[in-house]
Amino acid sequence: MVRWEPDAAGRLRRAAAELFVERGVEATTVAAIAERAGVTERTFFRHFADKREVLFGDGVRFTSLFVDPVRDAPPDASPLDAVAAGVRASAAFFPDERRADSRIRGRIIADNPGLQERELLKMDAIAASIADALRERGVPDPAATIVARAGVAVFSAAFVAWLREDETREMGELIEDGLRELRAIAS
Amino acid sequence: MVRWEPDAAGRLRRAAAELFVERGVEATTVAAIAERAGVTERTFFRHFADKREVLFGDGVRFTSLFVDPVRDAPPDASPLDAVAAGVRASAAFFPDERRADSRIRGRIIADNPGLQERELLKMDAIAASIADALRERGVPDPAATIVARAGVAVFSAAFVAWLREDETREMGELIEDGLRELRAIAS
Repeated sequence: MVRWEPDAAGRLRRAAAELFVERGVEATTVAAIAERAGVTERTFFRHFADKREVLFGDGVRFTSLFVDPVRDAPPDASPLDAVAAGVRASAAFFPDERRADSRIRGRIIADNPGLQERELLKMDAIAASIADALRERGVPDPAATIVARAGVAVFSAAFVAWLREDETREMGELIEDGLRELRAIAS
Repeated sequence: MVRWEPDAAGRLRRAAAELFVERGVEATTVAAIAERAGVTERTFFRHFADKREVLFGDGVRFTSLFVDPVRDAPPDASPLDAVAAGVRASAAFFPDERRADSRIRGRIIADNPGLQERELLKMDAIAASIADALRERGVPDPAATIVARAGVAVFSAAFVAWLREDETREMGELIEDGLRELRAIAS
């Protein structure tokens, strides 16, 4: 039990976000983040590989939120139903308690082209992983690539909406909206 | 009339591709590309902003291939029909005479993560421009974003297939395949 360091990762995340907003990402050091969070630099590096990692978190866990449900979908599920299960599952990562922090993160990223690229590359890699999982289910190309990317497009549109200041609907509801749109575009 | 310099841009493109394959992108200088093409560096910079630009060409013209047909589609065309017209039009950029050169370009990009990022960013910007054109047509979000990205996914899947050594179908045919798949996923 580590009573003297409860939720160090959460405190580091908040400290980093504050400093990124105050000083910009470039001018913020790991030492400053650790100091603001009241932990050592060593503790910082136990949780994150570098300062940008604080904004992007656990990529492996986030990717598996999308991909595992595609793998675990019933064998007779359509490619879109399998992908929809993965996109729906991603909502668990964005409960409403995290919306205020996510909005701050969104503004930090919007102000920094390098971070925008990283976000884009991250989502592209997730689309590629979903397409791989579809191929393992026997879905051929180009369908695997197209359905996977369309699913990620639904996620991205929902996420952008969720971050908007005037948006009150929950992430799960916005994803359902997008999935309905996707099904409707063909008709 | 510039008789002493016929198709300088084309010769620069071929010279650059040869040198990128022989030496890698990093080790290739603009001076070496110009020399191999038999033109001056000044001529190089009349056609391209930097050596990477040789691989990416005229982004404005390429983007308008996708976007103009969306703007020009009949008012009653569905969002997907408007986007499909743009994706179809992009095939004009990839006649079969360019396939061999495009395959070399594809291998150069596949070997260089920085160039892969640039390609990804380029296609993301095109998706954003298509979504803007849909919004101008009165298509609300999230539909505009989702249809635009799904259309770009069709293009990307067709382009990857077109570059494959064992693929003989033309770009236009591969795009039609992808559009059929996109319409089918919803049903």
